[in-house]
Amino acid sequence: MRGQPGWIMFGEMAEQPQVLHRILSEGAPRIRETARRIAARRPRFVLLSARGTSDHAALYAKYLIEVELGLPCGLTSMSTTTAYGAKPHLDDVLLITVSQSGGSPELAATTKAAGEAGALTLAVTNNPDSPLAEVAQFHIDLLAGPEKALPATKTYTAELLCLYLLVQGLRDRDGSAARVLPELAEGVLSRGEEVRHLAGRYRFAERMVITARGFGYPTAKEAALKLMETSHIPALAYSGADLLHGPLAMVDNISPVIAIVTEGQGGQALQPVLDRLRGRGADLVVVGPSRQVAAVAHGFALPTGAVPEALQPVLEILPLQKLAYEVTIARGQDPDAPRAMAKETGTR
Amino acid sequence: MRGQPGWIMFGEMAEQPQVLHRILSEGAPRIRETARRIAARRPRFVLLSARGTSDHAALYAKYLIEVELGLPCGLTSMSTTTAYGAKPHLDDVLLITVSQSGGSPELAATTKAAGEAGALTLAVTNNPDSPLAEVAQFHIDLLAGPEKALPATKTYTAELLCLYLLVQGLRDRDGSAARVLPELAEGVLSRGEEVRHLAGRYRFAERMVITARGFGYPTAKEAALKLMETSHIPALAYSGADLLHGPLAMVDNISPVIAIVTEGQGGQALQPVLDRLRGRGADLVVVGPSRQVAAVAHGFALPTGAVPEALQPVLEILPLQKLAYEVTIARGQDPDAPRAMAKETGTR
Repeated sequence: MRGQPGWIMFGEMAEQPQVLHRILSEGAPRIRETARRIAARRPRFVLLSARGTSDHAALYAKYLIEVELGLPCGLTSMSTTTAYGAKPHLDDVLLITVSQSGGSPELAATTKAAGEAGALTLAVTNNPDSPLAEVAQFHIDLLAGPEKALPATKTYTAELLCLYLLVQGLRDRDGSAARVLPELAEGVLSRGEEVRHLAGRYRFAERMVITARGFGYPTAKEAALKLMETSHIPALAYSGADLLHGPLAMVDNISPVIAIVTEGQGGQALQPVLDRLRGRGADLVVVGPSRQVAAVAHGFALPTGAVPEALQPVLEILPLQKLAYEVTIARGQDPDAPRAMAKETGTR
Repeated sequence: MRGQPGWIMFGEMAEQPQVLHRILSEGAPRIRETARRIAARRPRFVLLSARGTSDHAALYAKYLIEVELGLPCGLTSMSTTTAYGAKPHLDDVLLITVSQSGGSPELAATTKAAGEAGALTLAVTNNPDSPLAEVAQFHIDLLAGPEKALPATKTYTAELLCLYLLVQGLRDRDGSAARVLPELAEGVLSRGEEVRHLAGRYRFAERMVITARGFGYPTAKEAALKLMETSHIPALAYSGADLLHGPLAMVDNISPVIAIVTEGQGGQALQPVLDRLRGRGADLVVVGPSRQVAAVAHGFALPTGAVPEALQPVLEILPLQKLAYEVTIARGQDPDAPRAMAKETGTR
């Protein structure tokens, strides 16, 4: 395998069960303690700051914070600080900055500025020695080990799990529902043949649409980014509600659609969208509970039975990471050598 | 013209200078008074709620609120309320719901729930008798007149201007810098021949990338949506910073790029991205100040000299609305009859 196209990405995808296990055993007690100290300061509003893949983990955290913590929450626009010099009043605000490398000057600058403006600041990164971890008052280590592939995979699922444990800690819960994840992730990742079969459908696709609602929506956005940055297929992610507003015009049989259906409220809210897509004769693939997959011609069934909806995103993204990898291989490209990607962009 | 493909959209685009003028003369004093009453309640955190085109106006407002008002601000995920029944604590929060029709049950439900949870609620709609306007404590009327075309145009620029005047009012300013807009908009809209010339470039495009930073970013997202919902070209909008993270791989000479360059900090922050795109030989069209347009082979120069950066989005979108219209006509489709759009989606 070593030296073959995509072997770095392949190896890092395969590490995910082990990383999840490490977070649950080594990371969880420290995250709980960090959560306890943050909760003692009683933040009233939460802001999240991130870019790229980490921004999708931040969006996941936003759902969790609104639904499970009951705090108003927003994703920040970093350029308001770095380009426009905005100085918002941030008393009672918790700013969570999520970054695989922790090395972006932009993220460190916005985090530092937020701390000076009165916010509590927490960095979630894979590098405890990074500039970001240094400027933040609190730090959560992703414990994912070095990530060398340009498309981020194991740091994404690590971010999801760490943010889940953080929010549970802020509610004074232990997040023990997550303990099933490493084994389930192992099972999902072992089904490479099924993904390879699906990948064949997209070998000649000129565009793709990925849709979801609620907790599945960050998965849709992250899957679209993975597909674009490895295979260069323009993949458009829409919340199911937004899809009905206009972009549905693009669907028909021109654009294949992948729907992420969670077992729970988000999946239920997506049902009218699925019905509409079927009614239009869309080429629809479902990633979700087996009952949902059985209702369409093609899909990838996830073991959602034992997993709360809020944790399903950790499993959902796995077949989609592998799909991006397999489609890229099928197109004769190298997932490890996407043109023009930089692991850290240095934008300010 | 009447009865020809796209004549409804064409007519509504042409009304924009008149709508801007109406807002400045009739709407502004009422918006100022609404702002005064809201400011007296001293909100500390702002949430924005919207879908589709209005969501891009909300994103614009988010930049304004962070930069000019200095309040932390976030876009809400409606499904956390409607699908998950989240009950966040919203004391000291101002929720601004933006909707052309004011008729979406989802928006009315989240606005009502937010009011019950302690938020101040403000509806910005084109219909003062809509369910949304009724459930909100405050209301701003867009005064745009009936919008019949499915792709929203005049309500978008009306939303931008009303939100600008609101934020200026919250700062106890009169927003008089906006008075130049109707005449400048008239001038921009009169240059249809230039846009038709640009549209020829995209007649056979299979995908497009639209990029910007800061105040230009909502324009990029709205332009992408207009192109998709009229011509069905998959148009991907990226903040310049995100584009460098990965999707740049898609650019090269495969995907034409349109860059929205504001005269000001946002445009400056985009310069490294423009340099990178030029270095890769991207097919780059610039919408922005004449100096920026002169540096590339093709573009559309805007009269930015007399317009603060925060107001440039009102002008920037005009040639891009017309571009969506012209590309659609060039492809033999009808901008007034996009497949599968519904003016109001009824999602919950």
